[in-house]
Amino acid sequence: MSKKIMILPGDGIGPEIIEQAVAVLKTADEKFGLGLEFAEGLIGGASIDTHGEPLTDAELARAGACDAVLLGAVGGPKWDKLDRAIRPEKGLLKIRSGLGLYANLRPAILYPQLADASSLKPEVVSGLDILIVRELTGGIYFGEPRGIRTLENGEKQGFNTYVYKESEIERIARTAFEAAQKRGGKLCSVDKANVLEVTVLWREVLDRLAPEYPDVELSHMYVDNAAMQLVRAPKQFDVMVTGNMFGDILSDAAAMLTGSIGMLPSASLNESGFGLYEPCHGSAPDIAGQGIANPLATILSAAMMLRYSLDMGEAADAIEAAVSKVLDQGLRTADIYTDGCKKVSTAEMGAAVVAAF
Amino acid sequence: MSKKIMILPGDGIGPEIIEQAVAVLKTADEKFGLGLEFAEGLIGGASIDTHGEPLTDAELARAGACDAVLLGAVGGPKWDKLDRAIRPEKGLLKIRSGLGLYANLRPAILYPQLADASSLKPEVVSGLDILIVRELTGGIYFGEPRGIRTLENGEKQGFNTYVYKESEIERIARTAFEAAQKRGGKLCSVDKANVLEVTVLWREVLDRLAPEYPDVELSHMYVDNAAMQLVRAPKQFDVMVTGNMFGDILSDAAAMLTGSIGMLPSASLNESGFGLYEPCHGSAPDIAGQGIANPLATILSAAMMLRYSLDMGEAADAIEAAVSKVLDQGLRTADIYTDGCKKVSTAEMGAAVVAAF
Ligand SMILES: CC(C)[C@H](C(=O)O)[C@@H](O)C(=O)O
Ligand SMILES: CC(C)[C@H](C(=O)O)[C@@H](O)C(=O)O
Repeated sequence: MSKKIMILPGDGIGPEIIEQAVAVLKTADEKFGLGLEFAEGLIGGASIDTHGEPLTDAELARAGACDAVLLGAVGGPKWDKLDRAIRPEKGLLKIRSGLGLYANLRPAILYPQLADASSLKPEVVSGLDILIVRELTGGIYFGEPRGIRTLENGEKQGFNTYVYKESEIERIARTAFEAAQKRGGKLCSVDKANVLEVTVLWREVLDRLAPEYPDVELSHMYVDNAAMQLVRAPKQFDVMVTGNMFGDILSDAAAMLTGSIGMLPSASLNESGFGLYEPCHGSAPDIAGQGIANPLATILSAAMMLRYSLDMGEAADAIEAAVSKVLDQGLRTADIYTDGCKKVSTAEMGAAVVAAF
Repeated sequence: MSKKIMILPGDGIGPEIIEQAVAVLKTADEKFGLGLEFAEGLIGGASIDTHGEPLTDAELARAGACDAVLLGAVGGPKWDKLDRAIRPEKGLLKIRSGLGLYANLRPAILYPQLADASSLKPEVVSGLDILIVRELTGGIYFGEPRGIRTLENGEKQGFNTYVYKESEIERIARTAFEAAQKRGGKLCSVDKANVLEVTVLWREVLDRLAPEYPDVELSHMYVDNAAMQLVRAPKQFDVMVTGNMFGDILSDAAAMLTGSIGMLPSASLNESGFGLYEPCHGSAPDIAGQGIANPLATILSAAMMLRYSLDMGEAADAIEAAVSKVLDQGLRTADIYTDGCKKVSTAEMGAAVVAAF
């Protein structure tokens, strides 16, 4: 039985880092007889350049027909002046929504080999291992009505709608409770229930489900406090769950606590475990084409894909072990380089992971 | 000409810290012949206990008739089970909105004497001095429609509305541009214009005003990146301006970068410079009544009040100098205590500031 993976390199450093991840997947395929097949597609600016839109319906359907999707990154200054409706980011939002990928898992892990990279004091972040579960297909990202209108007095007004219904909250909450069961047994739900009604409902649903997960200790925290606590004492957290917008902000802050966002993978899953995997970082147009980007977040995303969507845990373990090995060898791309290590290119890093298998 | 200050101690540690700030103001009054008068009122849980609501219209009117308002903090577990409409926080939202206090200024300053308190590496935060300008009477905090409704299929749906019109954006933008002119000349506007239409309008208005402030360098940043950059390299920022919700999150994260949120004052101003002043921290119910809270954020809020709303800059300088002096003397409340310093109570700290005049 073969498994088909849709590869969407996207823009900026996307193609460079994806190339290395695919090489690693091919090595894993040979080694473990996984039967992987690859299809390649267009998303973001790359798709705009060819099709005039950031993700065609045909490409969305092709991706959905595969067993998993591996994405590089989208966006760049080249497309910044376009009408917002056809910007690269819309391709990302379309594939998330179109494939029902509501569960975004973003681990923030500090690799012991990279402890120095953090802007925080070592004692505050050493051993950091947080999982942020972000709702990805609802909330204010997709709420209607939305737009910019002209009021009677002639001035413009912008508006968006932050909306969640119980079933949307329940399914992401279950993802988070289950993740907490498999990890440290602690779940912190982040909301702004002292101000926003939509998050009052959020909190209610979490509280209603909690008795079904007696082995998970549920707590609630306001989003402003959560942002503060992530800076003050991030190791207090195990799993955090929150809506789309708060999750966007907090997961980036959490990722940056590690100082090595070039190392962090992410998964976006639907009801049946089908998923899109991508690095947490963006398309970094400023360094695109220079061959210096860090491919490890994408390689680790590929590992996550094997584990979560393709039931190939052994191969995933092997990839992660290989990454750890190259770090032990002192190999570093520019973003994680420190004195005494060996600076390598994107391709050299990819080759080193392949060789470390 | 006397100036009347409305004192709203509020809940938790509010009364304790306000007591010290008032003592300091009275000393400044004597010393500089300021002609200060004081009125005292109820807000938050204290008002709920007496009037059944977190801020009465009468109290709001009394506050508005004064020349400035000094607030402690509101909220606590005692009132957490109440119906949301009459929770302590609603008193805060009502006074902000009722008095038109749209411009919230939140400095995040690292006191050199307290450099060790930060969870960030010294080189990342030493000399940190950011001003966050947060819109305080609009956005999703006040947008309508809002609530929780039952859908046709019987499930509940929560909804809020994120809305800004041009005039609201323009006035807060001008506050921020003017603040940047008086400081380092750099303004970073934070939005999520790649997803939210309301912040597309936000960005447009900022860009439209920029030519009027040629001495200010305006940049734009997405909120997720801003959260990341605050952790990575906060000293890149001078003034940041953003909406109510993003400002709530980012100002707390920025405050925590200093490690000494017990030191940070804030001002909330209306069109005419009338303002409410309060510490950035909350009511800390866990330590209320123990006499160990740090009164310095409230004392510094009082200094801000003298400077911004009462045109008493000299007295404000004197208070700030006195605070610096007690820090130099090594006096520390528990929250900012480090080895080798002298641990003091709330009252001792207040008395030390008075004595340092
Ligand atoms: C590019 C953008 C639309 C996207 C988001 O806001 O979700 C990104 O920031 C992310 O977190 O994946
Ligand atoms: C108490 C709460 C309503 C308030 C807010 O969200 O504005 C607080 O967090 C603040 O920042 O002053």
